[in-house]
Amino acid sequence: MTDASLLAEKLIAAPSVTPATGPVFDVLEAMLEPLGFAVHRFIAGDAPDGPVENMFAVREGPPGSRHFAFAGHLDVVPPGDGWTSGPFAPERRDAPGGELLYGRGAVDMKGAIAAMVAAVVAVPPEAGTISFIITGDEEGPAIHGTRALIAFMRERGIRPDLCLVGEPTSVNRLGDMMKIGRRGSVNIWLEVEGTQGHVAYPQNADNPIPRLVAMLAEIDALTLDEGTDWFQPSNIEITDLEVGNPAHNVIPAKATARISIRFNDRHSGASLAETISDIAKRHGGAARPVISGEPFLTPPGAFSRLVASAIAAETGIEPEASTSGGTSDARFLKDLCPVIEFGLCNATMHKRDEAVAVDDLHALSRIYARIALAALHIRAG
Amino acid sequence: MTDASLLAEKLIAAPSVTPATGPVFDVLEAMLEPLGFAVHRFIAGDAPDGPVENMFAVREGPPGSRHFAFAGHLDVVPPGDGWTSGPFAPERRDAPGGELLYGRGAVDMKGAIAAMVAAVVAVPPEAGTISFIITGDEEGPAIHGTRALIAFMRERGIRPDLCLVGEPTSVNRLGDMMKIGRRGSVNIWLEVEGTQGHVAYPQNADNPIPRLVAMLAEIDALTLDEGTDWFQPSNIEITDLEVGNPAHNVIPAKATARISIRFNDRHSGASLAETISDIAKRHGGAARPVISGEPFLTPPGAFSRLVASAIAAETGIEPEASTSGGTSDARFLKDLCPVIEFGLCNATMHKRDEAVAVDDLHALSRIYARIALAALHIRAG
Ligand SMILES: [Zn+2]
Ligand SMILES: [Zn+2]
Repeated sequence: MTDASLLAEKLIAAPSVTPATGPVFDVLEAMLEPLGFAVHRFIAGDAPDGPVENMFAVREGPPGSRHFAFAGHLDVVPPGDGWTSGPFAPERRDAPGGELLYGRGAVDMKGAIAAMVAAVVAVPPEAGTISFIITGDEEGPAIHGTRALIAFMRERGIRPDLCLVGEPTSVNRLGDMMKIGRRGSVNIWLEVEGTQGHVAYPQNADNPIPRLVAMLAEIDALTLDEGTDWFQPSNIEITDLEVGNPAHNVIPAKATARISIRFNDRHSGASLAETISDIAKRHGGAARPVISGEPFLTPPGAFSRLVASAIAAETGIEPEASTSGGTSDARFLKDLCPVIEFGLCNATMHKRDEAVAVDDLHALSRIYARIALAALHIRAG
Repeated sequence: MTDASLLAEKLIAAPSVTPATGPVFDVLEAMLEPLGFAVHRFIAGDAPDGPVENMFAVREGPPGSRHFAFAGHLDVVPPGDGWTSGPFAPERRDAPGGELLYGRGAVDMKGAIAAMVAAVVAVPPEAGTISFIITGDEEGPAIHGTRALIAFMRERGIRPDLCLVGEPTSVNRLGDMMKIGRRGSVNIWLEVEGTQGHVAYPQNADNPIPRLVAMLAEIDALTLDEGTDWFQPSNIEITDLEVGNPAHNVIPAKATARISIRFNDRHSGASLAETISDIAKRHGGAARPVISGEPFLTPPGAFSRLVASAIAAETGIEPEASTSGGTSDARFLKDLCPVIEFGLCNATMHKRDEAVAVDDLHALSRIYARIALAALHIRAG
């Protein structure tokens, strides 16, 4: 089997702090073309949220065959300071549990993309259609990344049957967790206006702060739900307060706050925006929502059983089917087909000295090959 | 009678933006010395709240006579832009209601000090002891102003029987309001600390904002009192909120607020600081009070009747005995003796084109003369 760790080294060696363009895509293209993939690369968006490079690569199976997609991102978060070796100079070091490969993106998620490429080598072309949905902006604004790839595919009538995202979902050991869903996310700015005045003459002023405080107390007391079979309860956090009044004896004219809601599939961004807006209005204020992502859920079934079996066959571990954590591009891909996320251990992601166990890379490529092969044969998603 | 408007012109012509020193004190000294006053001038304090010039001038009456004090300030607030004539170039202009004298300090309170000087001319030295307690810093920090004058007098065993402060207390017509008290003032900074974290993992964080919100809701719901015979109810205003968290997905580590309390004589700055601190602690926060001034009240009695009679005799108006508005140096002078504030109309104070009716200056000097004469003869304060 092709050595996934050698492929990972090549990807890590191409610096690609978000948004990624050019060289790192050249490296991946040079891996996929010899395997029979038709590689489509395009640039989307303008400043400030772009330009972003994206790649859709596909190896067509026989007519009428099923289509399985790997999805992921080549951009990485900035390395920061204090690395033991260069973040973009992949380095192998022996460690008590086995050899480790260091470099930015080792687990999030150049290592996983390398494992996907190595897996494809083990899947014969006649098994079905395989594609790579790869963006250069998942870690940034993500406005012109996977969304643009989905538009690209829709325009051409391309629709995978199943999709696996290679985000680092494992926690303590490779295989202990996959994600069958993610919560949605909405940030809402709250504002109350009043009338400025002197604290000695409150009758001539209208202090907006008590109304904001009452509004926030009501929002903080909300129970959105008790959780569902697959999701933890939706949660509201007040993340900012701002008046900015330096004058001790002045009643300010405006008070603002910001809240962040992570919500399960009992809600939508729009329904929560309306709930909060109603409370804000009742206290004489206004709410301005920005929806970052809707929740997604691929309910446990044939696809999750397939992924779990592949993981168990290689690691002996039965993965937890989780919906916890932040958002991922699965929030967009769910519009195409059922999506599950599974990848490396996330302990060092976004940190200095990000590293992956070389054995995990090999095991992950075998798991990915099992998933692809099984996914190209099952009937229902 | 000496023309108070001519004296006011001379004082206005000496620029004295707070803190005032030098020339404007020279002008006042030149007025008081010919009238038999011993003038003591001294500088108090260092940067940033000083240096400040102060003047204690006294004309001793016969041994054992009573002592009446006029109090006030020679500093003025900055003029700002847009004046019709120069703020320190006194100008008389005819107006429908009679001649007006324009200039910074015309009503607050060089005009009143001019009226005091003119009044003294009409009070024979044998009537009793008259003094002027004049600071160069009432409009600024007021740390080294009237407080230093009180220390100066205490060291010398000087204690007036009654004191009149010449702040502009009249509202629509000269004589419609005197102040027999002022509310106290305390600002309190509130702080709640928590543990920073990611909004997707609230179980690993401790958001301080809900505790601050609950604390502020409890403080906002407080009824400190229902008012007293002479004071309106004590009032709490929340004047600032601050978290300063730019990251939408981060639970912040700290949340702060500031409140301002104007309170009557049912409370002290210390008692309120304790009340608020108890609430803050109950919500896991802390309170840091800064007391700007304690309340003062000269309960209605012989002194207020005396002032009201003098006003009514010259204007035909029965003044309202008020305790409303901001703080003044009476908050310090109350430690010496009973204090009442009475002065010109305050409509243009601290504004551009500050102006006083020349007729009001003359009437005020006659009122001040009546007050001084009567105050030197009454038995009880
Ligand atoms: Zn990632
Ligand atoms: Zn004043």
